[in-house]
Amino acid sequence: MFETAELGQKVSKSDFRKQGLELWRALLEVQRQVRDYGRFPILIDFAGVHGAGKGTTVNLLNKWMDPRWIITRAYGQPTDGERTRPMYWKFWRDLPPRGRIGLYLSGRYSDPLLDYVYRRISDVEFKQALERINTLERTLADDGALILKFWMHLGRDAQKVRLSALENDPLEKWQVTKEDWRHWEMYDRFIEAAEILITRTNTGQSPWHIVEGEDYNYRSLTVGEIIRDAMASQLEVHQLNAELRRERHKRAVAEEAEAAGDDENTDAGQHRSRTIFDGLDMSKRITKKEYRHAVKRLSGELNTLHREALKKKISTVLVFEGPDAAGKGGIIRRMTSTLDAQNCDVIAVSAPSEDELKYNYLWRFWRHLPRAGYMTVFDRSWYGRVLVERVEKLAATDEWERAYAEIIDFEDQLVEQGVVLLKFWINVTKAEQKRRFDARLAAPHKRWKLTEEDWRNRDQWDSYCLAAHEMIQKTNTGVTPWRIVEGNNKPYARVKVMEIVSQHLAEAVAGNASGD
Amino acid sequence: MFETAELGQKVSKSDFRKQGLELWRALLEVQRQVRDYGRFPILIDFAGVHGAGKGTTVNLLNKWMDPRWIITRAYGQPTDGERTRPMYWKFWRDLPPRGRIGLYLSGRYSDPLLDYVYRRISDVEFKQALERINTLERTLADDGALILKFWMHLGRDAQKVRLSALENDPLEKWQVTKEDWRHWEMYDRFIEAAEILITRTNTGQSPWHIVEGEDYNYRSLTVGEIIRDAMASQLEVHQLNAELRRERHKRAVAEEAEAAGDDENTDAGQHRSRTIFDGLDMSKRITKKEYRHAVKRLSGELNTLHREALKKKISTVLVFEGPDAAGKGGIIRRMTSTLDAQNCDVIAVSAPSEDELKYNYLWRFWRHLPRAGYMTVFDRSWYGRVLVERVEKLAATDEWERAYAEIIDFEDQLVEQGVVLLKFWINVTKAEQKRRFDARLAAPHKRWKLTEEDWRNRDQWDSYCLAAHEMIQKTNTGVTPWRIVEGNNKPYARVKVMEIVSQHLAEAVAGNASGD
Repeated sequence: MFETAELGQKVSKSDFRKQGLELWRALLEVQRQVRDYGRFPILIDFAGVHGAGKGTTVNLLNKWMDPRWIITRAYGQPTDGERTRPMYWKFWRDLPPRGRIGLYLSGRYSDPLLDYVYRRISDVEFKQALERINTLERTLADDGALILKFWMHLGRDAQKVRLSALENDPLEKWQVTKEDWRHWEMYDRFIEAAEILITRTNTGQSPWHIVEGEDYNYRSLTVGEIIRDAMASQLEVHQLNAELRRERHKRAVAEEAEAAGDDENTDAGQHRSRTIFDGLDMSKRITKKEYRHAVKRLSGELNTLHREALKKKISTVLVFEGPDAAGKGGIIRRMTSTLDAQNCDVIAVSAPSEDELKYNYLWRFWRHLPRAGYMTVFDRSWYGRVLVERVEKLAATDEWERAYAEIIDFEDQLVEQGVVLLKFWINVTKAEQKRRFDARLAAPHKRWKLTEEDWRNRDQWDSYCLAAHEMIQKTNTGVTPWRIVEGNNKPYARVKVMEIVSQHLAEAVAGNASGD
Repeated sequence: MFETAELGQKVSKSDFRKQGLELWRALLEVQRQVRDYGRFPILIDFAGVHGAGKGTTVNLLNKWMDPRWIITRAYGQPTDGERTRPMYWKFWRDLPPRGRIGLYLSGRYSDPLLDYVYRRISDVEFKQALERINTLERTLADDGALILKFWMHLGRDAQKVRLSALENDPLEKWQVTKEDWRHWEMYDRFIEAAEILITRTNTGQSPWHIVEGEDYNYRSLTVGEIIRDAMASQLEVHQLNAELRRERHKRAVAEEAEAAGDDENTDAGQHRSRTIFDGLDMSKRITKKEYRHAVKRLSGELNTLHREALKKKISTVLVFEGPDAAGKGGIIRRMTSTLDAQNCDVIAVSAPSEDELKYNYLWRFWRHLPRAGYMTVFDRSWYGRVLVERVEKLAATDEWERAYAEIIDFEDQLVEQGVVLLKFWINVTKAEQKRRFDARLAAPHKRWKLTEEDWRNRDQWDSYCLAAHEMIQKTNTGVTPWRIVEGNNKPYARVKVMEIVSQHLAEAVAGNASGD
């Protein structure tokens, strides 16, 4: 594999001057086009042998392009904020928005590689870590991102020469540490690991480019040209795909209109739209007295447990989904009012902002993940992708279909990190929703809560039910099950939720973080 | 997850008669369209709880569609041919060609599921097996295949009722074995396994559909409608994608023409096209005497080793790539002439036939994999995807780019199965090729070997070199390294190849099947 990058490739000074200048202009121009287009981010990763020019290449790219639209990150020892959150949190945080470029040194590949080299993880664990990276890259690439990965290479002897040269230069000496020499002695082990890493993650969507790093001129031109060509090509593919998507959307809308006009078709299958919600006993209720009693008890429990979880650095993520006026907000307020607001965030999720739209839909949820011991409550969540975005056709079919797997992967990562993740579906009947809407209309101080959108959503009741039914089918796992809460009686729903949270926090704090 | 399929969904007899007839017509029609279009295969898998109607559904689909264009396979105990070949061989063998439908019972999901349920494999191994399935499905879906997976479900109690009912019916009694009852007692374990299986393999490209299996009418209509809609939608997406691809191809050709006209651009980068082949010592040669001596010795060795390998059921796959007139054929003839032709196949790979084009490019190689102990020699191979198909633009960029990962996965499967896989690149210089071409022209009995295509390929020498260079970069792994053979001197090349084969066969036979 790497023999192909130990050929002694060189570019002369005069060639470099001439071609470098051309490349500089071309990169600036394609960067401007990508930024103006503003529909996809670019992630460029540098890995490889120490001394092969990762750092200098990143510097040069910041010169050859407009650095205002570039994010450059070199990951070292994790900061406090990073260490106390799920592993990939920092990579999501540092994603470039659409139209911009992220350059990464010692990024997501660094830890698995070193862990494997130092035998801190097994062969199987290494491959699993790489599979996780593949999943992340697939999620981003499916969403349009351009992902480029460079392995900057030096042969064993070339690295020795390079490290010695650096060491003998008083101005560069700092670049070579004892660890670098120790790594050099482990050269073969590194190369073995790199080979596994590259073959396992060299996908069509995010390929590796192996670049010979001995000659500054050669490697700079090579990397720059690959980036230039890839950006231009991605721009073109994207524009064509956008046309395709528009065309598909147009046809889908036309077909739907046609189907809607065809009464017979609408009838067919109607009686097969029974959902899991139909089987719920929605008459469940408790008395006011029972409610007061239970809330008092549960408030005390939750307060104590939350403080213990904080001490033990056990984070909690609560997810609430359900129809409009199901009472999600009330449940959340009732429950969190007993907790210390300093370490409990409630995130009310509405339509993504213009800024948020510049990222993958999962990005804004990753941002809000709690640090160790804290709690985040999501009032609506990433499940919007397969609910409102699906029903309102804000996401294309292929987008929401693949979201089930993306969401499961996301939640798996939280659970693996020891986060207590609980998902609630607060259910109300269509009639009860109507009653609540009417009540809001009648009460001037509550009327603001009711928007035109709520009525429009109500019209789509059946579509939402089917989408929620499928959501539960596809994402109700043993590890992160959905808790379906009968919500027609608000006191009943509040107590049920608080009880479930209390029970699971108690288990987690007692060191038994397993699910049901 | 499965609660959503335990709702007691039913369709009345009269509704079924009416809707079933409509569906029947629609399925026939969409099947005809897909067949006429002829560009993508359809794979439909049935898994689920015994008694939930997998078999009857497959029968009904064979009635609702034209069975001449359907392949139906139910896998039971492996046949001799299956057991002696790599695990996935049978699935590749049974792929439907483009335009046709494959219906599978107890297919690729069956073994991992049962192995996990019976604790014959660990949690990690189960997930790895599922990841392998994902890779297969991705390979096929990327290539355009429509993949549908149905989990036919029954609740625990419903299954008991169903099994008892079958048992009490003299005509159906045979369907219920003791094993079925044992499995029923392990119901929870099956469901736990199924949940892992479905969440891990429920991708956007090949989603699972969970169908309640209690009512014949309901499940039949549900499955049929999903298939009807998916086929129609795939047809549409395909047609739009084909437009997109054509458009992209047109632009690429135009750009290339433009670049070719621009001399400056052509110059730039030219001196950076140094490849791994430039560093070879192509003057290596041996004398006639040395050759005769070596061949005699190696022939004896190879013959013995091949017979031992046969006894020990160790299969061998040899791959030969290299420029036209590199001498691949001569090497292969020289080597195989000493072997028993009965258990050694030589497959000369040329452009795929019309029939072969109806499958994924890997299909025709899977077919020819040797049974246990046999040898298959590929004179050119699956690497054509990243060589001739890339250079001649027979494969689109995204197709050959993702082929590296597909090929590595394919070869990994062979090696895991204990196959001795050796890949040879027989190299000749451009001058030596010219000399051989001229010699062929001069000798009437050899002239037929030289086609116009050979001269055209020669014109593309540099492009082929670069493609081969990248191929070696991306697929030269520790497990399946490329052996580069200096081929200007034919005797030297023949002996070198025979020596490598002999050495690795000896290691494998001695129980040490590791690579270099």
